[in-house]
Amino acid sequence: MRVGMLTSGGDCPGLNAVIRSAVLHGIKTYDMEMVGIRNGWSGLIKKDVEELPRTRVRGLARNGGTILGTSRTHPYDTEGGGPENMRRNMRELGLDAVIAIGGEGTLAGANRLAADGLPIVGVPKTIDNDLRGTDYTFGFDTAVQIATDAMDRLRTTGESHHRCMVAEVMGRHVGWIALHSGMAAGAHAILIPEVRTPMEQVAEWVKQVHDRGRSPLVVVAEGFIPEGHDDPLSEAGVENSGRPRLGGIGEWVTREIEAMTGVETRNTVLGHIQRGGAPTATDRVLSTRFGMGAVDLAAQKRWGQMVAANGTDIISIPMSAALKGLKEVPVARYDEAKVLFGR
Amino acid sequence: MRVGMLTSGGDCPGLNAVIRSAVLHGIKTYDMEMVGIRNGWSGLIKKDVEELPRTRVRGLARNGGTILGTSRTHPYDTEGGGPENMRRNMRELGLDAVIAIGGEGTLAGANRLAADGLPIVGVPKTIDNDLRGTDYTFGFDTAVQIATDAMDRLRTTGESHHRCMVAEVMGRHVGWIALHSGMAAGAHAILIPEVRTPMEQVAEWVKQVHDRGRSPLVVVAEGFIPEGHDDPLSEAGVENSGRPRLGGIGEWVTREIEAMTGVETRNTVLGHIQRGGAPTATDRVLSTRFGMGAVDLAAQKRWGQMVAANGTDIISIPMSAALKGLKEVPVARYDEAKVLFGR
Amino acid sequence: MRVGMLTSGGDCPGLNAVIRSAVLHGIKTYDMEMVGIRNGWSGLIKKDVEELPRTRVRGLARNGGTILGTSRTHPYDTEGGGPENMRRNMRELGLDAVIAIGGEGTLAGANRLAADGLPIVGVPKTIDNDLRGTDYTFGFDTAVQIATDAMDRLRTTGESHHRCMVAEVMGRHVGWIALHSGMAAGAHAILIPEVRTPMEQVAEWVKQVHDRGRSPLVVVAEGFIPEGHDDPLSEAGVENSGRPRLGGIGEWVTREIEAMTGVETRNTVLGHIQRGGAPTATDRVLSTRFGMGAVDLAAQKRWGQMVAANGTDIISIPMSAALKGLKEVPVARYDEAKVLFGR
Amino acid sequence: MRVGMLTSGGDCPGLNAVIRSAVLHGIKTYDMEMVGIRNGWSGLIKKDVEELPRTRVRGLARNGGTILGTSRTHPYDTEGGGPENMRRNMRELGLDAVIAIGGEGTLAGANRLAADGLPIVGVPKTIDNDLRGTDYTFGFDTAVQIATDAMDRLRTTGESHHRCMVAEVMGRHVGWIALHSGMAAGAHAILIPEVRTPMEQVAEWVKQVHDRGRSPLVVVAEGFIPEGHDDPLSEAGVENSGRPRLGGIGEWVTREIEAMTGVETRNTVLGHIQRGGAPTATDRVLSTRFGMGAVDLAAQKRWGQMVAANGTDIISIPMSAALKGLKEVPVARYDEAKVLFGR
Repeated sequence: MRVGMLTSGGDCPGLNAVIRSAVLHGIKTYDMEMVGIRNGWSGLIKKDVEELPRTRVRGLARNGGTILGTSRTHPYDTEGGGPENMRRNMRELGLDAVIAIGGEGTLAGANRLAADGLPIVGVPKTIDNDLRGTDYTFGFDTAVQIATDAMDRLRTTGESHHRCMVAEVMGRHVGWIALHSGMAAGAHAILIPEVRTPMEQVAEWVKQVHDRGRSPLVVVAEGFIPEGHDDPLSEAGVENSGRPRLGGIGEWVTREIEAMTGVETRNTVLGHIQRGGAPTATDRVLSTRFGMGAVDLAAQKRWGQMVAANGTDIISIPMSAALKGLKEVPVARYDEAKVLFGR
Repeated sequence: MRVGMLTSGGDCPGLNAVIRSAVLHGIKTYDMEMVGIRNGWSGLIKKDVEELPRTRVRGLARNGGTILGTSRTHPYDTEGGGPENMRRNMRELGLDAVIAIGGEGTLAGANRLAADGLPIVGVPKTIDNDLRGTDYTFGFDTAVQIATDAMDRLRTTGESHHRCMVAEVMGRHVGWIALHSGMAAGAHAILIPEVRTPMEQVAEWVKQVHDRGRSPLVVVAEGFIPEGHDDPLSEAGVENSGRPRLGGIGEWVTREIEAMTGVETRNTVLGHIQRGGAPTATDRVLSTRFGMGAVDLAAQKRWGQMVAANGTDIISIPMSAALKGLKEVPVARYDEAKVLFGR
Repeated sequence: MRVGMLTSGGDCPGLNAVIRSAVLHGIKTYDMEMVGIRNGWSGLIKKDVEELPRTRVRGLARNGGTILGTSRTHPYDTEGGGPENMRRNMRELGLDAVIAIGGEGTLAGANRLAADGLPIVGVPKTIDNDLRGTDYTFGFDTAVQIATDAMDRLRTTGESHHRCMVAEVMGRHVGWIALHSGMAAGAHAILIPEVRTPMEQVAEWVKQVHDRGRSPLVVVAEGFIPEGHDDPLSEAGVENSGRPRLGGIGEWVTREIEAMTGVETRNTVLGHIQRGGAPTATDRVLSTRFGMGAVDLAAQKRWGQMVAANGTDIISIPMSAALKGLKEVPVARYDEAKVLFGR
Repeated sequence: MRVGMLTSGGDCPGLNAVIRSAVLHGIKTYDMEMVGIRNGWSGLIKKDVEELPRTRVRGLARNGGTILGTSRTHPYDTEGGGPENMRRNMRELGLDAVIAIGGEGTLAGANRLAADGLPIVGVPKTIDNDLRGTDYTFGFDTAVQIATDAMDRLRTTGESHHRCMVAEVMGRHVGWIALHSGMAAGAHAILIPEVRTPMEQVAEWVKQVHDRGRSPLVVVAEGFIPEGHDDPLSEAGVENSGRPRLGGIGEWVTREIEAMTGVETRNTVLGHIQRGGAPTATDRVLSTRFGMGAVDLAAQKRWGQMVAANGTDIISIPMSAALKGLKEVPVARYDEAKVLFGR
């Protein structure tokens, strides 16, 4: 059996560990030929591949990024995509199966190809932890750890200067990174897309903390929108179309807090460091197990399925199950964290 | 309601985070008075306590150790222990409940006191991850991360010198730390108490790896006993009664590998660094949630219950459920890791 | 002898280690009474002080920030400052000497007070490494390490996405942090205030690296101004008066690179995390030695002097010697780094 | 010009950064051909080399170990060594110069070869910081940081259990790692080979710290010998010939402290983790500059010279200058640290 693998969408610590364990498990357990497809679906469209002997994955578990490269090309792209082209390219490359490693978009594409009859299995990947059907995916733990380390640092400088520190973390649509890193770092307010906290409430929390002689730490997910504002950045005249852009919600929240409370406030945008570098041990274990699980699915020809984490087990679920809307932070989890806010 | 808290047994990163969140949740949500009992059950026997206002738990989530101190004193200790003494002391201290944070021994004691009618709830704590009824407890993730970081370092020096590196990690009775850190670090052999791997097999793995030009990494849990040996340390004439002792299983395995393979081999015992210092973000989140959950149990007077992790939820189970034998590494998990060994 | 200590200006990892060792050395070696002056010169103006017994400095060497707090109040502030007020306040507080820990502004004030006859000695502090007369000061090593760790992470995500990554680091007037972290992280271009590199040159380096299949890493100090631009941020219409502001030179450079090369480019501003958190071991050793040296200077009544690092020695120099203009990155050091740029 | 490079002796974080910058500087500045000699002098004896194009040193600055491998083979080894063989081999390999990167033994060999007329320059390397003529070498800063991180962890577990913690660090002949890491971690006693502290003094320090309610931290260099003992390990019946051995001075000191003070005491041997893994930023900068400096020496045909750190400068000194006896910890530096001990 000859099995291709691709990584698609934003990169994530743990991708290389998935690739490594899939290659080792495929070769050693099933005597498979393992093939790397370069730069996501684009590589399958262009037939841009490389053989993956075990020497290629040496010592890879601890390396961030993906040796296969990634892109945002869609498998149904009008230029060369679609099930017929993909099937033909797979045949020409001699591929009996494809393991697609990616987030919501990637899995949606993979699921559609599988529905169109292609031999495809999936591995969920999202730094944001927004996929349904799996407790967690790799990359999330690393992102939370990096954000927490940064906040530990922000707190000491905040305390010295009697300032309010704002930390903007990843999370356009869900607030998982903000929730976990904020809880770990002892934040006094956590602002997430799922809960439209009014700025008056945020200002009150900040004042309460400041009044008892401490330096407030406010964690804000990049997709947070306060109550009473439809698009705070546009209102503030910030150009927001495309990237790089000047300023984000962290800057806006910072200005508002300073204006509303009079407490000197500083913003830090953690940005891309949250998705780079060595994965945590937890993410390495999870991605190693995911890589093996995906190879098992391919060996069993369970097309359309993906691996998932369920408690301490790695299970198999239909890719479609992961795609029924984003996994948001439940109200109960936010209320739990809220105990730590403000006064 | 006036609630006492104690930490008992070996310390563990995350204890302070449990204490902090319990204090904040108790005071802010339930208007409880929170009381710290010093040095485990010993403090309840000696009525050695301190008030825990919220200023006492400031910034505590990231600190290792326990501000309450710990000891190995048993609650049924003949000198001052037992349910009558404990009940009287609780009454004299004005305590309406006790939250006992500890491992198997502590929870067994707490469970027996609860069965004897005392108002006690539990929080599971074990660096070794050997408690049943909960997916994980805090401290384990930190220990695995520390061990993995150390192994990442051992690998580079091993490769430079073409040596086999042995790392002895914690785990007297179960091999969870060895399994996870070994898998994360890409170990070529993992030796755990649950599996009596013969040294001939270990030597073969080491030779296979060395023969393909790499530096073998062997992870051994302190409780590993190879097939064909009842007590390797005693056989080697190593005095083993009490601590500090000279050498352990890591040293023994190192010598055996070198003798059997001729490959230069070096041992490192990670020891106490695995249980100290700042907890990982994951452990901080888990212990924060455990602390809150325990306070909820106390508020609901659910004596004899303890908090537990189940997937992404914090649930409540009878303490007795955690005590039905050690949670060992299942064969399937070991076989999964074995794919990565040797050749 | 009763000795006051104050920390003034921006905070810096290592301040607490200075305080700790000064207190221990003062008490144990000279039987001094040590006094903390709160929030920089402001505390001397307001007579806001606290006794510093040795229990107050327990375990402090590894903590970031300053337990004394800091401010930007000037000792010649018209409201309560000036040598007469300071002398009177010192007398009323019973202080025989003051150890002033701070950067250029603080030392200039301390030097002027000493010239006006007050018993003051100095400890140099600058994250930016811009003080003359000393090889290094504490805080710089930590800032460089934090920036390097972040860049290690940026590189892996850059490689996966075939992007150019820009990292904006501290350095309004000098480029030391950029130079050292860029060299440590293997940057392909380092842009510093001392060298007005034209953007055409930067774009060429980026294209060269991209063309040989790698992901360019560009490090830019916040005070960098490219040749041919007087104030790039104003030109771009970015409001720059006061803080928080939207966007900085990193954003501007990012846009220019993308426009000039067509290579997808992303910016990360490391910001306040560079000055917070636990100091590196090197900074702890240096600040511990500085604290002791400053107490020796006070014991010897060497007013107007400050400690300095010279090779492996701690020496004493007049504060005025540190204030003869900023210590800039010499051309030879920049040329050395340039070997690593571009092609 | 065709320049060979070899790494010899124990490995050290920063070796790869030296190799990388030497290759880049050699190729880009001088148009040299750079050649890697494998496994130290052994590679020159066996003519085991590899070309080092710049693609070979990609991203290498942050990797621990040495891609060239290392060994303890002596250049005057009777089997194939000596100046005639070396000269012939260099000629046959087309090498116009050799850069030898290593410690005392390596530099002594290199110096002798240079005296015998071979075109050799040196780069000092020692984790122990025991070479004269240079303020520091790379690897030392990383070792100190790793030891300090470990001690930070040991302290929290020590405090929880009211134990004395002993940490054995590297340093057979000199105590630099113990001195710096102990000072950084706030140790209560530092025991080094240069100072034969009696165990009675150590016990007194431990008791003083324990009596004021703290957990003593004792750092001991592996070559420490207390006053009144010629060889404590042999006395204790510990077999000490060859490695791996059971127990070391840390174990011995631990037992003695426990016996003399009655304070529960635990030992941790940091061992090989001190020499592995990613170098600190400081070590990466120093090794990058050393690599460039060595290439400059070769280009200038300054045979017999080596690079050295002097304040903030990289200078050139005769290799013989580094070899005039070990650089020990001076009494003044030890007395400085002693202020922090005990009471």
